[in-house]
Amino acid sequence: MTTPADVTATLRLKRVAIDTYRENVAYLHRDCAIYRAEGFQALSKVEVRANGQRILATLNVVDDACIVGPDQLGLSEDAFGQMGVSEGHEVRIGQAAPPCSIPALHRKIAGERLAHEDYRAIVRDIAEHRYSKIELTAFVVACHQGELDREEVYYLSEAMSAVGRRLDWHDHPVVDKHCIGGIPGNRTSMLVVPIVAAHGMLCPKTSSRAITSPAGTADTMEVLSNVEPPFGRLMEIVREHHACLAWGGTSDLSPADDVLISVERPLSIDSHGQMVASILSKKVAAGSTHLLLDIPIGPTAKVRSMPEAQRLRRLFEFVAQRLGLAIDVVITDGRQPIGRGIGPVLEARDVMWVLQNDPRGPDDLRLKALRLAGRMLEFDPDVRGGDGFAIARDILESGRALEKMQAIITAQGSRSFDPEQPALAPLTFEVTATASGVVCELDNLQLARIARVAGAPKVAGAGVDLLRKLGDQVEAGEALYRVHAAYPADLGFARQEAREHDGVRLGSPADVPPLYLEI
Amino acid sequence: MTTPADVTATLRLKRVAIDTYRENVAYLHRDCAIYRAEGFQALSKVEVRANGQRILATLNVVDDACIVGPDQLGLSEDAFGQMGVSEGHEVRIGQAAPPCSIPALHRKIAGERLAHEDYRAIVRDIAEHRYSKIELTAFVVACHQGELDREEVYYLSEAMSAVGRRLDWHDHPVVDKHCIGGIPGNRTSMLVVPIVAAHGMLCPKTSSRAITSPAGTADTMEVLSNVEPPFGRLMEIVREHHACLAWGGTSDLSPADDVLISVERPLSIDSHGQMVASILSKKVAAGSTHLLLDIPIGPTAKVRSMPEAQRLRRLFEFVAQRLGLAIDVVITDGRQPIGRGIGPVLEARDVMWVLQNDPRGPDDLRLKALRLAGRMLEFDPDVRGGDGFAIARDILESGRALEKMQAIITAQGSRSFDPEQPALAPLTFEVTATASGVVCELDNLQLARIARVAGAPKVAGAGVDLLRKLGDQVEAGEALYRVHAAYPADLGFARQEAREHDGVRLGSPADVPPLYLEI
Repeated sequence: MTTPADVTATLRLKRVAIDTYRENVAYLHRDCAIYRAEGFQALSKVEVRANGQRILATLNVVDDACIVGPDQLGLSEDAFGQMGVSEGHEVRIGQAAPPCSIPALHRKIAGERLAHEDYRAIVRDIAEHRYSKIELTAFVVACHQGELDREEVYYLSEAMSAVGRRLDWHDHPVVDKHCIGGIPGNRTSMLVVPIVAAHGMLCPKTSSRAITSPAGTADTMEVLSNVEPPFGRLMEIVREHHACLAWGGTSDLSPADDVLISVERPLSIDSHGQMVASILSKKVAAGSTHLLLDIPIGPTAKVRSMPEAQRLRRLFEFVAQRLGLAIDVVITDGRQPIGRGIGPVLEARDVMWVLQNDPRGPDDLRLKALRLAGRMLEFDPDVRGGDGFAIARDILESGRALEKMQAIITAQGSRSFDPEQPALAPLTFEVTATASGVVCELDNLQLARIARVAGAPKVAGAGVDLLRKLGDQVEAGEALYRVHAAYPADLGFARQEAREHDGVRLGSPADVPPLYLEI
Repeated sequence: MTTPADVTATLRLKRVAIDTYRENVAYLHRDCAIYRAEGFQALSKVEVRANGQRILATLNVVDDACIVGPDQLGLSEDAFGQMGVSEGHEVRIGQAAPPCSIPALHRKIAGERLAHEDYRAIVRDIAEHRYSKIELTAFVVACHQGELDREEVYYLSEAMSAVGRRLDWHDHPVVDKHCIGGIPGNRTSMLVVPIVAAHGMLCPKTSSRAITSPAGTADTMEVLSNVEPPFGRLMEIVREHHACLAWGGTSDLSPADDVLISVERPLSIDSHGQMVASILSKKVAAGSTHLLLDIPIGPTAKVRSMPEAQRLRRLFEFVAQRLGLAIDVVITDGRQPIGRGIGPVLEARDVMWVLQNDPRGPDDLRLKALRLAGRMLEFDPDVRGGDGFAIARDILESGRALEKMQAIITAQGSRSFDPEQPALAPLTFEVTATASGVVCELDNLQLARIARVAGAPKVAGAGVDLLRKLGDQVEAGEALYRVHAAYPADLGFARQEAREHDGVRLGSPADVPPLYLEI
């Protein structure tokens, strides 16, 4: 059980054209001599070795020689790619040694506080894919229920940032911004990055794709340009233009985070400790020295009260300071989606309108981006406190932000996009007001859900286009928002979802929830 | 997201000869029209329907038409079997609706106490395989960390017993015995069942196979007879002989338990609440009215102190009483393995020697079985308290227990077994004492591990044959136990494991850990 088998017989590698997503699967024929002798169990973890390379995979047993023969070892698409050798190559297989950190995992499940060394061991095993889905989930839930203390959050963050690639830009400051998420349409990065880069600051921004939301920054940016240039090319772009807006998925920064997210997302677990570790470990690994962190609050945001936002702010500040990362936390208005569009193409349209100083550019998106950019500019020791906003506005209004964005788009590989004729999904319906009144709620969660059901982000042109925002007066029968979909089935699902709950509440002006914020 | 798709187009069913163990997997070709239109995601749960039957499966996407074509839907071996239709049959597929009980799961993850209704909803979803491995693990870990109170343990047990098949023997009492496990060689059921059945009590015993131990009762019984007679035949056997000794795996009693065990075992999570719910729900579903429960304690047993054993006893008693099940809890000596053999064939030899009143039958196994059987006989209102042991001994010594056992073996389907020539695995080595002294520790966990590494229970004749027990005087160089294996690799692994830690400690007579128990 504890003994890793060292099998000397070899098998021939075969690529099995099954896409098992992020899970490595190895296929072994039931009559394979090695399978019989070694007492493998179905679904157990095996170690596959070839050419000095080793990967871990979950074992599936096959009875059909068309899939794999008795002298072959099959690997699923992704696992085959990781192995990096060609079909027919000699491979060896053995029982995977159980992860060293399992005793520490058990102590966490039992509710104990863990030491820095324990987190290092756990994170290393996670990053090397040594944990099964079951063990991963146990770690995530155990950390969530027996809330980590702030020292533990630091241990976890540090351990996560230390595994995988670590960038060094040989420059200072290296600035970044991040939002904790939960607000649809919140595409400020695509405005903030060109503004601060136009000022001359280094801002190598990598973003995620949507997992549970209708669009991530990478999905929206992908409407305008390639977001997956090869790593070396990305470094060149950053050196030349001081910025990039790319997908962070393949960059191997804090790889344990990607693995943890694969179980946190399906469970909708988003504890403060894991959020802080996830965000800060990636920033440290990416070589950032200064971070502007955006915490939106509102009735349907991730953070719903000021005391909770303040607790989260203090945790970010504590851990960032221990990690040697300068941080500025801003608490922002999260009462409703930002801008008009929800979905990649719709959001790209809003962003381009703001960059072009087009009056159709949503005011709230423009103002929020300028405020965030202003705070980031103040990371520059030559900028006086309070001057950032005016500098940012000047960069935007002068067209220098647009120019910088176009340079980034061209460098990453431009795609054809015209904000006057965005490639919206052609099937539409409008949700209308059933009575007259003032819009006093736009539910972030429900509007995001409707946009997803309509097809976003998989269908880039699908989503929700908001025609009214908080505080607007509407008459009965007037349109509140328009839904775009590419397929009749998607349109039907979205209509059904909107019929159950349209995400909009109308009332009197006094019903609009107030928000008292500094910025 | 919340909308189950109702797809009208059909696909042709194909059996894909991949054994994915307990996980249902559906294979869909990437170019399949339904796959493209419905926006399925790899690894998401889909619902497959044919002929009024519906099952849930995890989706894998295939690029090779040899595995499945664009107009086919493939199902893994086990899933194909559940579907119960032939290859080429029309099947429909849609997004699986998310389980209704997910909000309750989230409340449990957040540490809240759940209501009876919540447990009913969760258990129903689990039994219907609606939970992903991630959700299952989250439930198990959340219940473990925020320990369930005893009312909650009752709710969970009741909900588990209510799902799946429920037997009614139209007889009273229906007696059963159960041990919480952890003690190798502890095959008392194979003695207790024939004794109480010979007395005329109804004892329809179903047992599990080993998952992490070197043998379960079903594995050992399988050396002597078939343990998987069809369900109807099993009922006949019980009616005729008052007993059976069969595998409980296919009987659909408390099916949620089997699903939960699939994540509890790999995590080695064995919380009191889950143990009680697992055991009692199965007994209630099996129609038992009286249960004798065995809690062994010792330094390497599952329960290691008398206060812990008493807490566990009270929890069993509380929940059993709420479930209307009469229970008698006995706390027994768990300081070392019971009997000599560890592994199916070795244990079957010990059991048959005891039944045959052969002096080579291990005394401790015989005595424990008689004590347990005696307590069970006292469930009979005609047996006076304290008389059970003598009645049990009389049944054993008179040969009536052996006769009953042979009747059960014949009824279930006899296999050839001769305790004088047991089919032991032919490769052996002995572990010897490095110094003289008294055996003062036999580590249950380590001896079980060595027997497993040697091949038990997969290789029935493999395992550990103990030559010395606690309190025995040995001289340096004398054999402590013998290891049997079928393959050189297994023998090598077992030797290496025994070299690292042989599981035996020698000392002075005063070092033998004392145990003060009633029985």
